[in-house]
Amino acid sequence: VGERVVVSLADVARAADVSMATASRALNNAYGVSPVTRSRVLEAARRLDFVVSPDAARLASGTTNAVAVLVQHLDRWYFGEMVAAIESILSGAGYDVLLYHVNTQEDRSKFFADLPARRKVDGVIVVAFPISDYERERLELMDVRIVAAGGQSVAYPYVSIDDGRAVQQALEHLIRLGHRRIAMVTASGDTLAPAETGRTDAYRDALEEAGIAFDPELLVTCEWGGVPAAEATERLLGLKQLPTAILAHSDEMALGCMRTLRRSGVRVPEDISVIGIDDHPLAELADLTTVRQSVSEQGRLSAELLLAFLDGVDAETEQVTNTYVVTRRSTGPVNTSRAR
Amino acid sequence: VGERVVVSLADVARAADVSMATASRALNNAYGVSPVTRSRVLEAARRLDFVVSPDAARLASGTTNAVAVLVQHLDRWYFGEMVAAIESILSGAGYDVLLYHVNTQEDRSKFFADLPARRKVDGVIVVAFPISDYERERLELMDVRIVAAGGQSVAYPYVSIDDGRAVQQALEHLIRLGHRRIAMVTASGDTLAPAETGRTDAYRDALEEAGIAFDPELLVTCEWGGVPAAEATERLLGLKQLPTAILAHSDEMALGCMRTLRRSGVRVPEDISVIGIDDHPLAELADLTTVRQSVSEQGRLSAELLLAFLDGVDAETEQVTNTYVVTRRSTGPVNTSRAR
Repeated sequence: VGERVVVSLADVARAADVSMATASRALNNAYGVSPVTRSRVLEAARRLDFVVSPDAARLASGTTNAVAVLVQHLDRWYFGEMVAAIESILSGAGYDVLLYHVNTQEDRSKFFADLPARRKVDGVIVVAFPISDYERERLELMDVRIVAAGGQSVAYPYVSIDDGRAVQQALEHLIRLGHRRIAMVTASGDTLAPAETGRTDAYRDALEEAGIAFDPELLVTCEWGGVPAAEATERLLGLKQLPTAILAHSDEMALGCMRTLRRSGVRVPEDISVIGIDDHPLAELADLTTVRQSVSEQGRLSAELLLAFLDGVDAETEQVTNTYVVTRRSTGPVNTSRAR
Repeated sequence: VGERVVVSLADVARAADVSMATASRALNNAYGVSPVTRSRVLEAARRLDFVVSPDAARLASGTTNAVAVLVQHLDRWYFGEMVAAIESILSGAGYDVLLYHVNTQEDRSKFFADLPARRKVDGVIVVAFPISDYERERLELMDVRIVAAGGQSVAYPYVSIDDGRAVQQALEHLIRLGHRRIAMVTASGDTLAPAETGRTDAYRDALEEAGIAFDPELLVTCEWGGVPAAEATERLLGLKQLPTAILAHSDEMALGCMRTLRRSGVRVPEDISVIGIDDHPLAELADLTTVRQSVSEQGRLSAELLLAFLDGVDAETEQVTNTYVVTRRSTGPVNTSRAR
């Protein structure tokens, strides 16, 4: 970490060729600054990595009483339920929730470039995506508290499930039903996140623990999503020796697996069992066995963790919530006549 | 509408037994006011219906550059996708998005009671729920622009699909396939919304237009959701003469219908066709025929409509986006041997 050069408001004003009063008004989004001038000042502040002193800002305007929630994929159940739970706790405590939806690399870069120069929030909750070192530095410049909701994070306090344990529970369920030829359809990282290998590693570990040799052709990787999972399952159906069970990375992906099996006339669970992870609200309608996680509990706990920090209260900085198997009709005993 | 009594800051200060400076700081969430005093001032402001003059507030702090998004059920795809699209347009235009998730009557009352006294936003987007007359008055007290995203609204400018047209398209699709005995599984209003009768009325109208007599036992009503729809479908299967097709209020509900049919050994579409409304991302995985609406388009357009108002630009205040049938495997020609 390099030395922090202290940049003053005067430096910003000089770089933007405006008075200090104008620079201050521009940074505080105040009345009487033209859009052109404001953007020139913000650009100068960004270039110089100028950070409004939190103390000065607090003194000038009070604490912000606002928290930023940084989220992607809000159109997916997991993210929506998480944000709803976070909002409920924060608004109950009198905080405003500033929503930042960052689905593209461009959104994300803009968020991290703009935020530190305009200190608007007391804390940030990052929902289930990894933060790069550069981004972490930007957040730290703001001197706000940061919590990760969902997705274990080494850099921040977090609330999450234990992904490895969830996979282990799924495999234990299948192995108890007599399955040994168990495939996994796993998601590679999306454009914003590095490849998530935790669940895949856990799959290999759990097989090994059960004395089942890992067969690389049973591990198929695709992009996150139901349709990619449906296509990946076609690859599994092309194998000489079929699996008797499939573990999918998530319930949405399990529904994709089930579509391919249904279209191919493969009976679930008589021919092949399918298990997901999540307990998505629609899993129940698909009769899908799954490893349940409570997303709203993770959301609530992460918001409470942030509130504890903001109140200066000690709190457990690595909180892991429970998962367990919900048995439905998509898994059953291995069909020994077919399995060999 | 009664006369508006002008309440001054001095009235609020007197009612709360504090100085005007303290009352002002409390209302502006500023530094140096104890939580107890602040809540006393806010309570007095609420009791007196005190509204910070928008002009005074703008003069003091600039425009807020923030928009409130009022939403319920954020854990459902429709609402998450809508908010994501709204956020994308607003943040691109330099606005902050303040998220208010109001799932219970309590959340909702709190939002409407608190908001006017603390003018924090330039506009409000209400996502797909009706606003009562009292609530409308509270919003108007704020003197901010309001837009409804999804859900046709008589009181505000809106962007929405034509619900009646969507139902008509579904019925036309089924009727073209030879169906005449067409059931509908419809959602009654939830706790926050009055019963939504638009889709049910459209079902009756479309039948009439096709010269099909309305049979009340084919119209079953339940709470919104997949499991209630699954139960409602059991009622349909108890009829002496089964329907040959089912229209569900939404895709999530159609998935509930399909579960009951699957568990009962009723083949889809050979015995009974099923069609939904939405094109939920998981509809494709269930091979569900549906009437597609673009939620992200409605979100984008409603945010753009609000921005036009904020910029003082004229814009079309009643915008209706397209819907169309996406044909998948859950609908097929009527089975005349069964339908007689």
